[in-house]
Amino acid sequence: MSGQYIIGLPVEKISTPSLVLDIEAFTLNLEMMQSYLNKVKTSIRPHAKTHKTPAIAHLQLQAGTVGICCATVGEAEVMAYSGINNILVANEIIGEVAIRRVINLARQVQIIVVVDDLDNVRDLSAAARQYGATLGVLVDLDIGMGRCGVRSIEQLVQLAKAVDKAPGLFMRGVFGYEGHVQFIVDRAERTRKGREANEVLVKGAKALSAAGLNVEIVSGAGTGSYDIAAEYPGITEIEAGSYIFMDGTYQKLGLPFKQSLTVLSTVVSRPTDDTAVLDAGMKGISPERFNPAVQGWEGLVEVKKLAEEHAIANVNSGIDPRPGDKFHLIPSHCCTTVNLYDYIHVTRNGIVEAVWPIAARRA
Amino acid sequence: MSGQYIIGLPVEKISTPSLVLDIEAFTLNLEMMQSYLNKVKTSIRPHAKTHKTPAIAHLQLQAGTVGICCATVGEAEVMAYSGINNILVANEIIGEVAIRRVINLARQVQIIVVVDDLDNVRDLSAAARQYGATLGVLVDLDIGMGRCGVRSIEQLVQLAKAVDKAPGLFMRGVFGYEGHVQFIVDRAERTRKGREANEVLVKGAKALSAAGLNVEIVSGAGTGSYDIAAEYPGITEIEAGSYIFMDGTYQKLGLPFKQSLTVLSTVVSRPTDDTAVLDAGMKGISPERFNPAVQGWEGLVEVKKLAEEHAIANVNSGIDPRPGDKFHLIPSHCCTTVNLYDYIHVTRNGIVEAVWPIAARRA
Repeated sequence: MSGQYIIGLPVEKISTPSLVLDIEAFTLNLEMMQSYLNKVKTSIRPHAKTHKTPAIAHLQLQAGTVGICCATVGEAEVMAYSGINNILVANEIIGEVAIRRVINLARQVQIIVVVDDLDNVRDLSAAARQYGATLGVLVDLDIGMGRCGVRSIEQLVQLAKAVDKAPGLFMRGVFGYEGHVQFIVDRAERTRKGREANEVLVKGAKALSAAGLNVEIVSGAGTGSYDIAAEYPGITEIEAGSYIFMDGTYQKLGLPFKQSLTVLSTVVSRPTDDTAVLDAGMKGISPERFNPAVQGWEGLVEVKKLAEEHAIANVNSGIDPRPGDKFHLIPSHCCTTVNLYDYIHVTRNGIVEAVWPIAARRA
Repeated sequence: MSGQYIIGLPVEKISTPSLVLDIEAFTLNLEMMQSYLNKVKTSIRPHAKTHKTPAIAHLQLQAGTVGICCATVGEAEVMAYSGINNILVANEIIGEVAIRRVINLARQVQIIVVVDDLDNVRDLSAAARQYGATLGVLVDLDIGMGRCGVRSIEQLVQLAKAVDKAPGLFMRGVFGYEGHVQFIVDRAERTRKGREANEVLVKGAKALSAAGLNVEIVSGAGTGSYDIAAEYPGITEIEAGSYIFMDGTYQKLGLPFKQSLTVLSTVVSRPTDDTAVLDAGMKGISPERFNPAVQGWEGLVEVKKLAEEHAIANVNSGIDPRPGDKFHLIPSHCCTTVNLYDYIHVTRNGIVEAVWPIAARRA
């Protein structure tokens, strides 16, 4: 529920499960990332798939980002209509409906998309001409993750030349996301694998330059590789998203960012001495990867299982939470957890300060 | 997106990923369940957590159900405000806010909740008196799943007596859900375990009757145990939900119901001969249990991995899907997949016939 009437009251008064943001930790994360990037002179175009929240995108732009990144045309529409005017949709835009939507959006704000297919370049160009729009394009290079993206430098150059010649398209550079590197816990190994991927990306960028093509943007990275990529010569911008919130997965990496996002939940049953049932299940916190942690109670209250609307936790002897008691849960993955909600409850010292609409959820 | 303007057009014209319902399979499921239950003379109060869609709840009531079941107060509010006036919230209602909401709802429509805690009985009764409402109550008995619910018949009787005496509360019966039985593939084993659980539930009901308490409702079961429970003497109603949609998990059980729900997705990349990337990831289809199946292409196109907005599939040699081609995916779990969407696209022979709001999503 929206619950704007809860502003100014203690967060324990909201209905649970609910998404809660500690604004001080969040602001610290924004500032830490930006001051670091200012120092190493690399830009950030933060990924809005993490928050899907225009209020946050605007705070990121105010902090000094070059624009924002989106995962879908729907996200880009919501962000554009909320006043964000520089958006990279970091995915292939395929099919009549999606192309019509993204091209019409490009008549209103600056839009960049990525491509890995020659037919798609033709389709995008045809639509751009039909609607009189100009669409920025990055060519998508697979740098080791094995998802989308062309698989060789030769294909990259060939496709980029097609983009460069295509009316209505504006060749901007190259995109490559080292998704396979993000969660490697060992710092040395993560750095080594990250640099290997960055090397492929920069090699691609150089091949495009050598072919006389415009390469003003060389883009990649996530929160797990943000500094590895930011310090790699030739990369112009990083697309990290989760650094603003953090989660159980990124907590394992020893990053400087603070956990700002939690799911507030209520104990709804104490059926036995060593069991507590909370009201946050898979519909309120991502069931991905591993069970959520109970903030401040690690080792004492441990979630063992998620059902649809319940987390079943083991409770240590000596601890006796009562039905009605509240716990903050830390999700294993922030992005897929935010995607379950319509609102973020912004708190400062436990008092609700704002309720932000997650306007691009399922967009 | 809502996309009511797509009505009358082929489903391939909608943006993907999107939730699609085959209305003929759905109607068949409704009718099969109801005619079976009429025969064995047991009622159904279908679980609306599965669909969260008032349009579907009304069709279920028209088919002959005794009411509906909800998982949360928010779902019950949405259903009540959509004209549903007989609702069981099959979970403990704990905490000041949730209690205030459910009691106020009970002033408007007939509401039943479940309890497993004496303090909660006191709190519910106090609120019912304060607001002048009457709340129906089932006592929650654990029948082997190990989640909420009292753990013994003695506790059950003690708690039911407290409910019976509490002003504002109306003792209606006993609730016990054999969640641990639902997915047992072997039919004989599922029947054996189901009956064991049903036996505990009916024993509880008899103990309540023997103590002179009102036991008009003896409620349990899900789609996996619907007929086991429906034919067990003493059980008055079942709370199955998924039978209307089906999913990959329930398909393994040899049930008579048809798969009516799919997620329509688009091929967005063919980076290699044996790889297709689809646009339905963990934000568009549940990542629970196992990867989604590609309807009609089983064994030829196999999803190997879900990312946030992508399904990465292996493609057999001899198959050559192109970017833009559409596939219907079958989720491993229908309830948590529906929860990701705001709309269900209702189709008949591939033509969109209605777009139903999933009004109780995240409620």
